[in-house]
Amino acid sequence: MKIGVVGCGALGSYYGACLWRTGHETHFLLRSDHAVVRAHGVAIETAAGDFVARPHAAQTPAEIGVCDLVLIGLKTTANHRFGELLPPLIGSQTLILTLQNGLGNETALARLFPAEQVLGGLCFVCLNRVAPGRIRHLGHGHVVLGEYLRPPLERTHALAAEFERAGVKCSVSDNLERAHWEKLVWNIPFNGLGVAGVAGWEAFVNGAGPSGLARTPCLPTDELLADARWASAVRGLMNEVLAVAAALGHAIPSDTADKMIERTRGMGAYRASTLVDFERGQPLELESLFLAPRDAARQAGVKTPLLDRLCAVLAGLDARRNLRG
Amino acid sequence: MKIGVVGCGALGSYYGACLWRTGHETHFLLRSDHAVVRAHGVAIETAAGDFVARPHAAQTPAEIGVCDLVLIGLKTTANHRFGELLPPLIGSQTLILTLQNGLGNETALARLFPAEQVLGGLCFVCLNRVAPGRIRHLGHGHVVLGEYLRPPLERTHALAAEFERAGVKCSVSDNLERAHWEKLVWNIPFNGLGVAGVAGWEAFVNGAGPSGLARTPCLPTDELLADARWASAVRGLMNEVLAVAAALGHAIPSDTADKMIERTRGMGAYRASTLVDFERGQPLELESLFLAPRDAARQAGVKTPLLDRLCAVLAGLDARRNLRG
Repeated sequence: MKIGVVGCGALGSYYGACLWRTGHETHFLLRSDHAVVRAHGVAIETAAGDFVARPHAAQTPAEIGVCDLVLIGLKTTANHRFGELLPPLIGSQTLILTLQNGLGNETALARLFPAEQVLGGLCFVCLNRVAPGRIRHLGHGHVVLGEYLRPPLERTHALAAEFERAGVKCSVSDNLERAHWEKLVWNIPFNGLGVAGVAGWEAFVNGAGPSGLARTPCLPTDELLADARWASAVRGLMNEVLAVAAALGHAIPSDTADKMIERTRGMGAYRASTLVDFERGQPLELESLFLAPRDAARQAGVKTPLLDRLCAVLAGLDARRNLRG
Repeated sequence: MKIGVVGCGALGSYYGACLWRTGHETHFLLRSDHAVVRAHGVAIETAAGDFVARPHAAQTPAEIGVCDLVLIGLKTTANHRFGELLPPLIGSQTLILTLQNGLGNETALARLFPAEQVLGGLCFVCLNRVAPGRIRHLGHGHVVLGEYLRPPLERTHALAAEFERAGVKCSVSDNLERAHWEKLVWNIPFNGLGVAGVAGWEAFVNGAGPSGLARTPCLPTDELLADARWASAVRGLMNEVLAVAAALGHAIPSDTADKMIERTRGMGAYRASTLVDFERGQPLELESLFLAPRDAARQAGVKTPLLDRLCAVLAGLDARRNLRG
């Protein structure tokens, strides 16, 4: 299988490297890391055993050409570049798999390419790009695959089998939309409040922007859960997201919030991706992780006061960052 | 009432001028027409009697300041400018009324400002900007007002009364979303096929892009209805849009398509706004009129083969235009 990886940060590089290892012809589309990857490959540090992947390193999509599978690992803040980056890779048989965070990514792809070629993959993984061409796998790695707005096909299961062969735990969801909402139950509080924490609790409850930037550092999962006020906001947000999912017809087990909080306690001091983005001065994935879910909540007629406040605080922080950047 | 009008093309200028006439303090935010409007006002040519409106002519939103009502008449292709153009006009009591075409405009506003300040107005009107500061009213003018994702309030009715006082027929919808879908039943075929017609019937049925640009002119409403093939595509698209609306829970009377086609025959050779945009080399309102409705169709699980084809042809024509422009 010929695989193209677009968006070779931690996520795209990690899964691309795993698939490369099982013998697929794998091409990475690279910008800043191109010279390093071309010369030295992609180093994956993982408890299961470090390895170096040697994918083809391309600087333009035209060098890669039409693929059987395109993995998209771009930050969703770069989705406006789909039309520029993807067309040379996509033929009439190409599967287009977005591994990106949140809502709207499959829809954006289905505007540019036939909807029936679009799949989504939800990644439950802790990764970090520690240097150019060097990715550290901190834990987990499970992928949930699904088809865009339809039940899984034979090809979905075949693709899951390829991931499994590459050492990646992979399951198939019968409803990708529901799977997205289930993941948002975790992502919205831990990605959102972790960043909102820099503004301080008072700013969050008052819905006001922070008076100064970064008065406190971002709050990793353990600090959010250790503070009774933040922990109750985590729980409140989870309940809001579950209520929206229910209104949209997605049955998510009622003990999901409890189980997630319990599992997260076991993760220690984990810094969700949005915290890493924020601390690096990169734009937040506001649209896919927060604003699109809030639009859906409104359309469904579900009140989400905590999510509203979170969106306001994050938008304020993101705008300040952009002004400074 | 202090009124700010943002997007002073034919639509914003016309309704802004009508409201100015009843004595409201009215400000137009202008770019290219600023000098003309400042010197000579806005000339409205209408069968009911020509008049010249003398709104305040501003070049920046800061000159206008906070308004009681903001009318938005921008092309939806300029919605990315909301965040730059609107904040100086919006206070905590400001009503924000988008008069724009299609889906997603209220949602975009509700991302930037409190959702409860957002209203939508659907304009059933034939207008033309014939020269800078000169608007020709060709017919109709009815506005349907509604609240964003909630039933009408007392203020909605009060605002409708202001429009009526300004000589504009204005009704209040109990469900703005349904009203949008009802309008799309007309807009999608007549705005869409009118432009797709330049590619020729063969290109439309084959789903292929046209081999050359503008082989035939755009097709106004009478030409679409006079050709049995296009007329059947008009009807087919109407049925698709009605099916999506029904799947979304919007009850639209079953004779809507018949009535609209009948009424449209009575309009003669009307050139819907998208045709005018296309012929002027301006970008098409693809997002709000075609792509967002198609996304909604997919989410609702309704097959829309004609709309899919229309989106592909229009996107192709729009992209060529942009390349040439």
